[in-house]
Amino acid sequence: MAGRRVAIVGVGHSKYGYRNDVSLAELAWESIKQALDDAGVGQEDIEFVVYGNVGVWSSEPLPAVVINEYAGLTPKGTIRVEAACATGSAAIKHGYDMVASGQADIVMVVGVEKMNESPTPIVVELIGRAGNYFWEFENFGLTFPGYYAFYATAYMARYGATEEDLCRVAVKNHYYAARNPKAHFPREITLEQCMQSRYIAWPFKLYDCSPISDGSAAVILASEEVAKKLTDTPVWIKSIGVASDTSNISRRPDFLLRRGVRRAAEIAFKRAGIPLEESYRYIDVAEVHDAFTIAEILSYEELGFARPGEGYLLAREGQTYIGGRIPVNVSGGLKAKGHPLGATGVGMAVELANQLRGEADRGRQVPVKHGVAVANNVGGTGHYAYVIVYSLNP
Amino acid sequence: MAGRRVAIVGVGHSKYGYRNDVSLAELAWESIKQALDDAGVGQEDIEFVVYGNVGVWSSEPLPAVVINEYAGLTPKGTIRVEAACATGSAAIKHGYDMVASGQADIVMVVGVEKMNESPTPIVVELIGRAGNYFWEFENFGLTFPGYYAFYATAYMARYGATEEDLCRVAVKNHYYAARNPKAHFPREITLEQCMQSRYIAWPFKLYDCSPISDGSAAVILASEEVAKKLTDTPVWIKSIGVASDTSNISRRPDFLLRRGVRRAAEIAFKRAGIPLEESYRYIDVAEVHDAFTIAEILSYEELGFARPGEGYLLAREGQTYIGGRIPVNVSGGLKAKGHPLGATGVGMAVELANQLRGEADRGRQVPVKHGVAVANNVGGTGHYAYVIVYSLNP
Repeated sequence: MAGRRVAIVGVGHSKYGYRNDVSLAELAWESIKQALDDAGVGQEDIEFVVYGNVGVWSSEPLPAVVINEYAGLTPKGTIRVEAACATGSAAIKHGYDMVASGQADIVMVVGVEKMNESPTPIVVELIGRAGNYFWEFENFGLTFPGYYAFYATAYMARYGATEEDLCRVAVKNHYYAARNPKAHFPREITLEQCMQSRYIAWPFKLYDCSPISDGSAAVILASEEVAKKLTDTPVWIKSIGVASDTSNISRRPDFLLRRGVRRAAEIAFKRAGIPLEESYRYIDVAEVHDAFTIAEILSYEELGFARPGEGYLLAREGQTYIGGRIPVNVSGGLKAKGHPLGATGVGMAVELANQLRGEADRGRQVPVKHGVAVANNVGGTGHYAYVIVYSLNP
Repeated sequence: MAGRRVAIVGVGHSKYGYRNDVSLAELAWESIKQALDDAGVGQEDIEFVVYGNVGVWSSEPLPAVVINEYAGLTPKGTIRVEAACATGSAAIKHGYDMVASGQADIVMVVGVEKMNESPTPIVVELIGRAGNYFWEFENFGLTFPGYYAFYATAYMARYGATEEDLCRVAVKNHYYAARNPKAHFPREITLEQCMQSRYIAWPFKLYDCSPISDGSAAVILASEEVAKKLTDTPVWIKSIGVASDTSNISRRPDFLLRRGVRRAAEIAFKRAGIPLEESYRYIDVAEVHDAFTIAEILSYEELGFARPGEGYLLAREGQTYIGGRIPVNVSGGLKAKGHPLGATGVGMAVELANQLRGEADRGRQVPVKHGVAVANNVGGTGHYAYVIVYSLNP
């Protein structure tokens, strides 16, 4: 079932943040250049370029060839993919499939997003349409803080988690963002600051929510034969799990334990030989989709880091710091590293490749015991779910 | 280099046209249902769904899971891809890579577009942005009739082709559209009608331009093992060539013989063992991207159906009707079958699969001698170029 092995052989990551200093193509180039240099290849060596970009807030609606031209990648084949907030992981999957199938030996995957080209209220409205546009956005005016507040209130009511537990996720992620110079918000916050910040959608306060970010990230994927020529430390894509859920949240049997994410984890972990219930015993580090603090806690449970209903205890006990049960979002996460939609999943791959290679920033490098890392990227309210297992072992 | 073999095992195609009678999901379902029935499978058998959709004119900006839910395809993994007017072929490539790599045994590819949700002048402006947005659209106000008029005037000046030669492409494609009940304009026109129609952008008159269409098309792709269980007449995807060109047309060394299309043809034909210079001797039928009449003539030359500078003679001599050198666009083409962007490339695959299976409509079935058909789908002004070879022989 597997096709050829595929490895990450080069990575690049821009500064995330408010990036009105650059155009979309210039922003992409920051990561493309780093990735080419890291892999030790030139544009002529790349066979195909997959762009992850949502772009509805941006002046360049069809960006793939525009960036390709700017980055000196013409006449290489190119495509844009979109899966809402999981766009970056969808782009990685396409690049993976292309190399695994033998259609190409070396492919670049670029995630890029300039969200701040539109005013923030417009962007919040546009993201709102990534839920169920027709019923939920037009009829009820739901936007994403509201959607995830549903999750948070349901979770708190059922399991007894508190607003402090949610804030503890934010405090951890800011702690690590302070050690990541690429982060949108590279500074620590205290629990008190989070608890005293203004309400956005109860129980969420300002610090429970990820920011609207611009940024880019890139990875170069290669076949086994090419990877072994280029690097001594290829980071293998061990498995990819993908699933979807209904776009109408009212059509789901339960708000919690999002079925799409759970199913994507089951698929990916089965292929990688990791038992879902105790997955944390096999994984060195994880990046999960903390667009809102509750989302990180839901991911703990869906990925098997905690049992259903016990995810908030990992946050309360500090078990997802380095040294705990399993380090999660030691990049700063979407919460504090930032969330430029099309780049986010690719940025997760860059972070995990650096962690597995032992090249993360000082103060946030995890101990590498198993050589295994996991990314969980989620689009919409759980509609698009991606789980990718990265490994030092092919 | 090839991975596993991949075949089309089921096809579906909606009526193209002004489809304000259905929602985007309903329009997609028309093709999904036909494709499932044609393949003899149910939603539960499909492992992944790739959607081709540009969608900037549509109220549903992130359509993949919305359609997935409507069509009973939740919780299957899903993604949207975009490559401007070549979006449908890009979607097929992604589905192909997924099956060829062994990541899935059976994948559905759906192209769908509802362009008439926005008023026509807005749609023309939005398509205009598929050129080079920043320099050419904002600064010079270029939209697509103007872009392709550049090609036409350059071609006429260099080679001596006439407005009548362009109109002959339109007359042929309307002739076949009249025999295709799925066509947007299922009626014949005369050369005089075309020549007397009003100018849109000289030398183009109304009948030189493809319409703004709504429509959908779907194909189900399967691995060799699964295909042989499902059907006696699998249509194999023999090869796919993809290339890009600069988005700035001013950065190209020559307007004619578009480099991206030529390169995509070279890649695809080489993999399929077809000599480019005399490709027409090996191919039963082709669908090419006649968004404007000149574009069909350019494709003749780029695909090796005629020598550079002689494509217009094929039109003048009627060599691309059934019975001539090589039948082209006997579906009616973008020109008269219609051009719903995300669906177009998938619709080409449906048409060619039907032709190779001997199941095209009466009056437009080509003789099948070689069992080989070719699709050429182009995005932007030649930025995105796809050439796909379909074959009855694995």
